[in-house]
Amino acid sequence: MHKGLIVQKFGGSSVANLSRIQNVARRVVNYSKKGYDLVVVVSALGDTTDELIELAHKINPEPAEREMDMLLSTGEQISVALLAMAIHKLGYEAISFTGAQVGIITDTSHTRARILKINADKIKEELKNGKIVIVAGFQGVTLNQDITTLGRGGSDLTAVALAKELCARECQIYTDVAGIYTTDPHIERRAKKISRITYDEMLEMASLGAQVMQARSIEVAKKFNVPIHVRSSFSKKSGTMIVREVKRMEDVVVSGVTLNKKEAKITVCNVPDRPGVAAKIFKELSSGGISVDMIVQNVSHTRQTDISFTVNKSGLSKASRITKKIARQIQADDVLEDQDIARVSIVGVGMKSHPGVAAKMFESLAKNKINIEMISTSDISISCIIKKKSGETAVRALHEKFGLAK
Amino acid sequence: MHKGLIVQKFGGSSVANLSRIQNVARRVVNYSKKGYDLVVVVSALGDTTDELIELAHKINPEPAEREMDMLLSTGEQISVALLAMAIHKLGYEAISFTGAQVGIITDTSHTRARILKINADKIKEELKNGKIVIVAGFQGVTLNQDITTLGRGGSDLTAVALAKELCARECQIYTDVAGIYTTDPHIERRAKKISRITYDEMLEMASLGAQVMQARSIEVAKKFNVPIHVRSSFSKKSGTMIVREVKRMEDVVVSGVTLNKKEAKITVCNVPDRPGVAAKIFKELSSGGISVDMIVQNVSHTRQTDISFTVNKSGLSKASRITKKIARQIQADDVLEDQDIARVSIVGVGMKSHPGVAAKMFESLAKNKINIEMISTSDISISCIIKKKSGETAVRALHEKFGLAK
Repeated sequence: MHKGLIVQKFGGSSVANLSRIQNVARRVVNYSKKGYDLVVVVSALGDTTDELIELAHKINPEPAEREMDMLLSTGEQISVALLAMAIHKLGYEAISFTGAQVGIITDTSHTRARILKINADKIKEELKNGKIVIVAGFQGVTLNQDITTLGRGGSDLTAVALAKELCARECQIYTDVAGIYTTDPHIERRAKKISRITYDEMLEMASLGAQVMQARSIEVAKKFNVPIHVRSSFSKKSGTMIVREVKRMEDVVVSGVTLNKKEAKITVCNVPDRPGVAAKIFKELSSGGISVDMIVQNVSHTRQTDISFTVNKSGLSKASRITKKIARQIQADDVLEDQDIARVSIVGVGMKSHPGVAAKMFESLAKNKINIEMISTSDISISCIIKKKSGETAVRALHEKFGLAK
Repeated sequence: MHKGLIVQKFGGSSVANLSRIQNVARRVVNYSKKGYDLVVVVSALGDTTDELIELAHKINPEPAEREMDMLLSTGEQISVALLAMAIHKLGYEAISFTGAQVGIITDTSHTRARILKINADKIKEELKNGKIVIVAGFQGVTLNQDITTLGRGGSDLTAVALAKELCARECQIYTDVAGIYTTDPHIERRAKKISRITYDEMLEMASLGAQVMQARSIEVAKKFNVPIHVRSSFSKKSGTMIVREVKRMEDVVVSGVTLNKKEAKITVCNVPDRPGVAAKIFKELSSGGISVDMIVQNVSHTRQTDISFTVNKSGLSKASRITKKIARQIQADDVLEDQDIARVSIVGVGMKSHPGVAAKMFESLAKNKINIEMISTSDISISCIIKKKSGETAVRALHEKFGLAK
């Protein structure tokens, strides 16, 4: 009968209204019936967090981060209480806790705190009492008893950290999609759900545009080898397992294709080719709080070179201002901005041991008359910057080329 | 410069929307400017608590009280965070706390918990740091770290208890009326604001229908001699001081007139006049959770008597059912219900030492052709049950008779 512990996490869309909360309660109870111990992590109802942020900004455009955490943490507290009530209604025992109550101790970096440790005694005690334990996601508490939050997507982190601490068999992340797909099903209808994927592939896909799970929590899961199961809260089908290693029947080289249209490209033209110039540019951008993504600098044949890089569109105007200032200092010719770009990437641990993957990618894009403006590679991914209008075509072409629809 | 500590409590209507929260922030800051240390207790925004209760009942008509407290306590937590942000916006230092964070320790009676003790070290420390301390009203925490709430009007209790613990000069209760009135100004336009009233008078008036302040918190204030100042959050005028003793220039016999239309009368007719009969009725009602208010039994000249009593209308059908069952057992003739009643009362510590007050009251009612159905008296109040339609006339007549409009 006793099958071990499962941690389940339900996101905001899974608890957006009363009937969805009741749906979650039924799912949880079904697992309980099967003989699992359950710890359930819940996010705030629907858009509650965004609404609270808006309210705060109306009162103070620059709210103190400590007070912001005090405010936002109420969203998850409402969710856990309501879910407990819904489970009681089904005749099962459940008890809800805030992050503070179950001893999720964090540092003092309000609005983006890091978990230092978890004192899980209370959870263990209530599990022993036969209760389903419901924990408010996204939040913790400092040693000084101040409430903190863990940043966007922080409920994923709560779930993974609890799964690690309690040695759960599995950490189930419930969301509004059926799992991780070979690419965005809105772009390529033949996209297939991936049944197993490695932490590394998932990390690449998360940072390249797939928004199913918070990247930080995948890192933590990888570090502590927590098996994650991403699945739909509206279906009983299993979703995608994220694990350390995937033993695939077939020799899969590429696991997925991602598309990111949120970046813009900045090019500094005719930069004098001497040591320290690139460092100067990117140090200034970093001090300005600008996060730079791809960077490309070609080998130069003259005494000048071009440096291109991409930034998130939200930081473009600031990045551009800083870059122009530096360009004058280093006597570069010009700074160009381009928002009309898309980044298409292929991800797969298999490509490490398969030469020719990049060539195959470039060939496929060329065949579709798509010009490549920048190229960047990692151990398990290759990204190309192309014209924005070609993004979807590129995704479909690569999805086909690497046999992902099979 | 340092003028000591004031505790201020703002109710839900005082923080019902953003501009009212900003108004509260300005009031608080004005006191801070004058050199007072400030502890500010806040209720949930407007109707938040009622909305949360409704939400809970949709999910589970009988929600667990522990989970109810988990849910409801979020309302005040939102208020304190927003008020802190609003005060920051005015350039002042403030810090918000939940009941748990400032160590308001209660028993485990969820939804109606009693405060056991307050560990005010944290508040004292932040006051010493020069901060305005904002505390979530209505809530506390058990020794086991479960969140509790203090029952309807519980924010008053939070404020009074903190004022006692911190030896505040004054506990200011901000509300949407200007103070305590000699009677309801909606009934008698010449009702006057009372500048000083005793705890005992206030307690009588609260239990007789005046709904400005929670009765339990007045009891606590009386016990620990905490001076209370009831006043409007929309005006700078001072309101009503509630204190132990009032030295009045003139000899005020009656301080106020109250009207309560929420009760119904039950009469058991022709009850056999033998010992233990009344006890039997009221013991059963009490076991049934029915709170009985006035009880009148006349001396009987035959071997039978009538017993009348009043209950809150919400408990009428249950009370009637229980009473009818007992009536059959004790062989009484009949049980009559009457919802068409009002209770009019006069309150005043002065009446202890003034004979003839009751006669004056009855005379005044008679002169207005108002029939008295039941009479009940305490040390400092006299109540009459009359026909409901005569309620307002009675209030105006008594207000005039005892010279309260002067």
